[in-house]
Amino acid sequence: MNKVITVSRAFGSGGRELGKRLAELLGIAYYDHEIISGIAQKSGLAEAYVNSVVDRKVAARYPITIGRTFSNAFDPQLELNLRIYTQQCDIIKELASRSDCLLIGRCSDHILRECRPFNMFVHADMDARVHRCREKEPAGENLSDAALKGRILETDRGRAQYYKFWTEREWGAKEHYALCVNTTHMEIRDLALPLSGLLKALLYNE
Amino acid sequence: MNKVITVSRAFGSGGRELGKRLAELLGIAYYDHEIISGIAQKSGLAEAYVNSVVDRKVAARYPITIGRTFSNAFDPQLELNLRIYTQQCDIIKELASRSDCLLIGRCSDHILRECRPFNMFVHADMDARVHRCREKEPAGENLSDAALKGRILETDRGRAQYYKFWTEREWGAKEHYALCVNTTHMEIRDLALPLSGLLKALLYNE
Repeated sequence: MNKVITVSRAFGSGGRELGKRLAELLGIAYYDHEIISGIAQKSGLAEAYVNSVVDRKVAARYPITIGRTFSNAFDPQLELNLRIYTQQCDIIKELASRSDCLLIGRCSDHILRECRPFNMFVHADMDARVHRCREKEPAGENLSDAALKGRILETDRGRAQYYKFWTEREWGAKEHYALCVNTTHMEIRDLALPLSGLLKALLYNE
Repeated sequence: MNKVITVSRAFGSGGRELGKRLAELLGIAYYDHEIISGIAQKSGLAEAYVNSVVDRKVAARYPITIGRTFSNAFDPQLELNLRIYTQQCDIIKELASRSDCLLIGRCSDHILRECRPFNMFVHADMDARVHRCREKEPAGENLSDAALKGRILETDRGRAQYYKFWTEREWGAKEHYALCVNTTHMEIRDLALPLSGLLKALLYNE
């Protein structure tokens, strides 16, 4: 079975950058936006639309199960969400079956649970996240700190709701992850190399 | 300022063993039961008594503050708890001022917050903890799995209540720690060496 690492990340924590650097250092495949592209390709939906659905609150008028049986009430939005999630599961399983890899978010820790992936959660306190977002802000955007904080909280809320809806688990609860890394006082570039050493030892006995 | 690592741990997660091995590998002082001995020595109370108080629910009939001012109602048990906690703060600060060190639990992450320690939380799922406790069980004890689980939950509850009472924070909430390590599928001896490498890089730039 391939070695699989999943990196879930609070918005602005540097989790994506850390994941990318780790995959490079470990010499394994890295999948982030590729998951969205794959779903778009398989489902025939536009990438921008898929991106607007995945990791965001599921707009269902009914809970997916009612009294432990599927609801018969037809909800076109939920049907579409379900179609996208099914494609997401297929793509993620397909990517993980190709070779050792690292995947960013999109419930990959839960979808791949039977492969026993090494699951990481990356987070940081709000000030550090605002600071990190500020550094990556496109020229001319100039959001206020309050607006940046609002965007961070809204993105996290969407991820948590999406994760909860499909997995019935709490996003970011430390119990689901082998390692939770708080990047508040760390530079991602300083963290990646020694952390890759830890992963090499634990996953590859190097 | 000395480099300080604190290791908080869920009962049966192997956190104490991990902390001891890390301190050895890093070549720094290790403080665990020494904290209890120090409090006993300073306070004149018996070690066994101090041990029965620290990391356990504080038996106060009143919250320590009422309407943001200290309660005037005299509670001898609370007075004794407060005396012990004050000694605990003194001892922990004194140990941290001596040299680089690693401390196990006893609110050291919070007590030393001004030194910016590297705080770790070690946890594992219940089955792994029962298994680990079973391996360390004194000959002849033969507790049932249910009894072991009860002891684990009770110990964790005591630690959480003690921590909450004195720090007003949630024990084990990942936000308070630089690293949360889930030892469920890991052997402590396999984890210690690569983890010490990560700490060397982050704390000592080695």
